[in-house]
Amino acid sequence: MSDILRIRNPVIGIVGIGLMGSSITASLLAAGHRVKAIAPLPGEEEPGLDRIIRQLRLCEDFDLLNAPLKEYLGLLTVSNDYYPLGDCGLVVECIVEDIEIKETIFKKIVEFTPANAILASNTSAIPISILQQMIPDPQRFIGIHWAEPAFGTRFLEIICGRETNEQTVDSIFNLAISWGKEPTVLKKDIRGFITNRLMYAVYREILHLVEKNVIGFEDADKCFRYDAGSWMTLMGIFRRMDYDGLDDYNTAFRNIFPHLSNEEGISPQMQKIMDSGAGGIQNGRGFYTYTQREAERWLQSFEAFNKDIFHLAANYPEEIPITSKVTS
Amino acid sequence: MSDILRIRNPVIGIVGIGLMGSSITASLLAAGHRVKAIAPLPGEEEPGLDRIIRQLRLCEDFDLLNAPLKEYLGLLTVSNDYYPLGDCGLVVECIVEDIEIKETIFKKIVEFTPANAILASNTSAIPISILQQMIPDPQRFIGIHWAEPAFGTRFLEIICGRETNEQTVDSIFNLAISWGKEPTVLKKDIRGFITNRLMYAVYREILHLVEKNVIGFEDADKCFRYDAGSWMTLMGIFRRMDYDGLDDYNTAFRNIFPHLSNEEGISPQMQKIMDSGAGGIQNGRGFYTYTQREAERWLQSFEAFNKDIFHLAANYPEEIPITSKVTS
Repeated sequence: MSDILRIRNPVIGIVGIGLMGSSITASLLAAGHRVKAIAPLPGEEEPGLDRIIRQLRLCEDFDLLNAPLKEYLGLLTVSNDYYPLGDCGLVVECIVEDIEIKETIFKKIVEFTPANAILASNTSAIPISILQQMIPDPQRFIGIHWAEPAFGTRFLEIICGRETNEQTVDSIFNLAISWGKEPTVLKKDIRGFITNRLMYAVYREILHLVEKNVIGFEDADKCFRYDAGSWMTLMGIFRRMDYDGLDDYNTAFRNIFPHLSNEEGISPQMQKIMDSGAGGIQNGRGFYTYTQREAERWLQSFEAFNKDIFHLAANYPEEIPITSKVTS
Repeated sequence: MSDILRIRNPVIGIVGIGLMGSSITASLLAAGHRVKAIAPLPGEEEPGLDRIIRQLRLCEDFDLLNAPLKEYLGLLTVSNDYYPLGDCGLVVECIVEDIEIKETIFKKIVEFTPANAILASNTSAIPISILQQMIPDPQRFIGIHWAEPAFGTRFLEIICGRETNEQTVDSIFNLAISWGKEPTVLKKDIRGFITNRLMYAVYREILHLVEKNVIGFEDADKCFRYDAGSWMTLMGIFRRMDYDGLDDYNTAFRNIFPHLSNEEGISPQMQKIMDSGAGGIQNGRGFYTYTQREAERWLQSFEAFNKDIFHLAANYPEEIPITSKVTS
């Protein structure tokens, strides 16, 4: 093994190596961890490994590797069994969002993992406070939420369940920094966590406006791409307010908050699209329609764009001191 | 005048040449229009011209000029009087967001502008349906909303007031395309228009969560910069749903919409910050604090970032056919 590849502790287990699991595995290998990747379904070992290799190639393309790809593969074990988890200090579950299946899987993880290991879930749908009840020692359970691709953004959301202890948060926070992330800590376990939840507020409002025929969804996309998209990656939310001036926002909020949508359900228009069997780019029918070729082009565009924006963002380093550990 | 500089019709009047007015003026000069820039306040002629020149230099830096800068200046008239508006086919008001001052200004604009000219406002705070009552022929009044910098994003929001006619919308839509914009049309005149309104939905939710101590505002900024910021400029809102798959969103919306904030006022925490005299980077105190040097650095960073993201976005051309004229 090359000495330019610095191997980091702990050994990390990833259970579930679909799209996100394989991307997270590649990200952790690139950071220098030994990774035990578990494919819980029979027959998933080989396609899982293929996905991981593909994601590692993307890491290479992102300039995230400083040794040949095969040396990183030397840090990887892929298995259908759980016994390789025996030397892991952290195990992250990345399987489907099904609470019963997760319960079965966590039983196995607990059986094979050292008693002091931190257990985590990459769920974005199920509360951490519920999942942590599935293990004997809920204090060492935590949510770690990556965005896709796991290696290609500085985003990482750390979610405290009701019983997660401070030591667990600190450990994961410090690990995340060593991965090149700018981690954020969610102190309370709320639905949708932060990043998705804020976008849901956008979706609630825009579905309402499209329903009322105020604007078409193509135009809504253009607005967001070219206006919010022109400062978002630089500033975030509160910095943007500071930049524009707080007085104007104060006035605007008072005028507009009372008019925003408070709908609890999705709009009839979206329901109609759902009822027609639309699934998105996966089946070629969503808000837009896609030929096979167009769908593939969108997947490729996202990979290419993500690489571009990752490097662009690196030219605008975080101005915010990292002080976001649990302090309150 | 160089023949590589193609001069376009109509002649356009810009009334008010502060930050946005000068940026819009530069954008229209770069597109080849003759511009009559009116500084309504005495003494504002010279600083206004300086601002326009500075913005034109930025256009040059963005590679938006195809002739020497001084040739573009040859298309410009700056004046304290309104009589140069006499040959304008479009006049855009860009003054302070004060309804009484706007009324005075529109009286003068009407007095000096041809009877068939389109009159417009770049307001982001006052309904177009109210402003259009200030002119004798409200059908030819429209909202044209640029984002800063006017030349450096494909964003342009066209807002119909209650009485705006279709011919006026079509004219401005086609003009906007000739300016290199991907214009969007807001069919109904709603508070905050679209792009700001969607962000207000984000602000309402995040102020609520910060108030409840779920997350700190620094962390909220990181989430948005690195997650939403990693796909926003490529996909917009509905395309993102298609990409991720509609089923997951459908489930998430049903779970989460009922929990989103429906607050009508700003949070006590923001109120406290406002009460302390915080204005944002302009006075060095906002959600963050800024030395003079830090404030300047943020202004510079935004200029540099905007140039970068403008060019990056150009590599991912709009997939959406331009079909957003008023059709319903």
